[in-house]
Amino acid sequence: MYENMDNGIFPEIVIPSRSVKNLVYDEELEQYILGLSKVKRSSQNIKHIRPFTQLVWLAFFVNKLLKQGKTSTLRDVYYSAQAYNIDFKDQPESDDIITDLEAAFSRAREDFSIYPEERSAVFGDLTIEYTVKGYEGKRLNLASHPDGYLIGPSLSTCEFVETSAEMVIAVEKGGVFTRFVEEKVHERYNAIIIDTAGQPPRSTRYILKRLNKEMHLPVYILTDGDVYGEHIAMVIVAGSANAAHIRDLTVPTAKWIGVWGTDILKYKLPSIPLTDQDVKRIHELKKDPRYNKELWQRELDVFLKIRKKSELEAFAKYGLTAIVDKYLRDKLDEAKSF
Amino acid sequence: MYENMDNGIFPEIVIPSRSVKNLVYDEELEQYILGLSKVKRSSQNIKHIRPFTQLVWLAFFVNKLLKQGKTSTLRDVYYSAQAYNIDFKDQPESDDIITDLEAAFSRAREDFSIYPEERSAVFGDLTIEYTVKGYEGKRLNLASHPDGYLIGPSLSTCEFVETSAEMVIAVEKGGVFTRFVEEKVHERYNAIIIDTAGQPPRSTRYILKRLNKEMHLPVYILTDGDVYGEHIAMVIVAGSANAAHIRDLTVPTAKWIGVWGTDILKYKLPSIPLTDQDVKRIHELKKDPRYNKELWQRELDVFLKIRKKSELEAFAKYGLTAIVDKYLRDKLDEAKSF
Repeated sequence: MYENMDNGIFPEIVIPSRSVKNLVYDEELEQYILGLSKVKRSSQNIKHIRPFTQLVWLAFFVNKLLKQGKTSTLRDVYYSAQAYNIDFKDQPESDDIITDLEAAFSRAREDFSIYPEERSAVFGDLTIEYTVKGYEGKRLNLASHPDGYLIGPSLSTCEFVETSAEMVIAVEKGGVFTRFVEEKVHERYNAIIIDTAGQPPRSTRYILKRLNKEMHLPVYILTDGDVYGEHIAMVIVAGSANAAHIRDLTVPTAKWIGVWGTDILKYKLPSIPLTDQDVKRIHELKKDPRYNKELWQRELDVFLKIRKKSELEAFAKYGLTAIVDKYLRDKLDEAKSF
Repeated sequence: MYENMDNGIFPEIVIPSRSVKNLVYDEELEQYILGLSKVKRSSQNIKHIRPFTQLVWLAFFVNKLLKQGKTSTLRDVYYSAQAYNIDFKDQPESDDIITDLEAAFSRAREDFSIYPEERSAVFGDLTIEYTVKGYEGKRLNLASHPDGYLIGPSLSTCEFVETSAEMVIAVEKGGVFTRFVEEKVHERYNAIIIDTAGQPPRSTRYILKRLNKEMHLPVYILTDGDVYGEHIAMVIVAGSANAAHIRDLTVPTAKWIGVWGTDILKYKLPSIPLTDQDVKRIHELKKDPRYNKELWQRELDVFLKIRKKSELEAFAKYGLTAIVDKYLRDKLDEAKSF
């Protein structure tokens, strides 16, 4: 842009289009990516001036963040703009420009020091070394606090030093995470345990990816036995449509080991009936190219057929530790074959 | 009950009534307590058999939990009942019986090893010693992981060994918690920082209480500048109506230092208009005996008058660190005088 201006040219920015029409499922990468359509924001076009200025300001702002080693949140960015008289009519507008910046660089917003409010957690034998200011070079083993460690900016940017773990088990719920710690899943199954706290934020997906890639650990995912649980697993495996502009957040080899619809039957789990919305969501996902694999389709069909869903806690019907002693063992065994 | 049965008497359980009519505001304790009304559940009364049996089963179940050193959640209890053929029609019914057990013993459910799903977090110079199984006697300093430590069963039951901190600062939001850690509030203000993650669960209120009582630390509370933020602070100070049957969860000396309605004006914060629901809630709380103090009433009135609310992040208008460098310092100074 400086060069453009030096040469008397109105600067412009070209970024991949994030419109639904430009969403392409890449069979090889096994995730949604953006197609070839581009959008151009030119400072010469009166209609473009607003998003152009917002995007340039944002780039300036996160550059400052990175240089100062500071972090922020989506909400911080929205309010910070007011310090510079940059006008965003509401937070969704600034969130959208942040996604544009992600698309421009194919990098997640965490790479620009913008972190989520929601936090998931981790526990297990993993020694990390911090890179954040004030903690550089310090090491910590993530098995020393049994309630778990929050995954925030420090954990997102740390180095993984060593682990004796042989797998990662991601669970969707804090209560089950605590159960797993209490029942020593980390020792009995040599596992690092991650609480995704529902749909995991990108920072947590990035940690899963790194544990898989850098530490060569297989990733297994346990969710509630319903279509939303299945989709939590799918987003870990194949990414989300609204992060199609970002690579390196998916774990294509991660395995969703339950709770499957077939498990609801097999283990005679307490269940509740599907709602109309559940059914609608299943039909949507059945058409989604990410679900174009036997296991994923089969389980969607089972949910549809039995019209039931079950929570992870439903295993407490067989005693509080049944989920660890019996179910987890069964499913990890079964996972060897798919 | 065993004695009753040995003597040929139908056992009965007497617990304080939790009906709204039996809710009394205790001026001395500065919290809601239960009045003198009692409810009796008799095994002789056909109408009582169901809740009587449920309550006895629950007492048996948590007794087992405590003996085994295991924890559970509200949801776990609901599903566990099915293992014993104890019928709860849904989780609200079992939650209700858990509250009955709390009322019978005037103890929080965490004392019965029933923990919340939601977790808040803590960071700062506090050395703790675990009492949970497998970690007995192990010590940890809560300043070693800058993303913060989850407050779960282990932290809830630990001993506080030592701290150099001179105060506790509780904030309502994860993003602000991270900002405080990053800006070294723990060092600059000699503070232990707590993320309440919205309305703090009882386990977190209990930690606040203990830091205040055992470690003699004053507690300061920072929330969003709206009626819900003010009420988060009030519940820490004076407890909630639905925990009127429990003592020892309040910190009567804790101070709500902001964001006040008056701060929205004074700091010219970005704000949004109150909704009808906000206004309705303010009128409700104005009549609440807990709010019968000058500061609390005044700020409710200010919200009503200016018809505006602001978030903690709004200070980012003055730069990301303004909330720590300027606002927090101002308000802690001001707090000396009220």
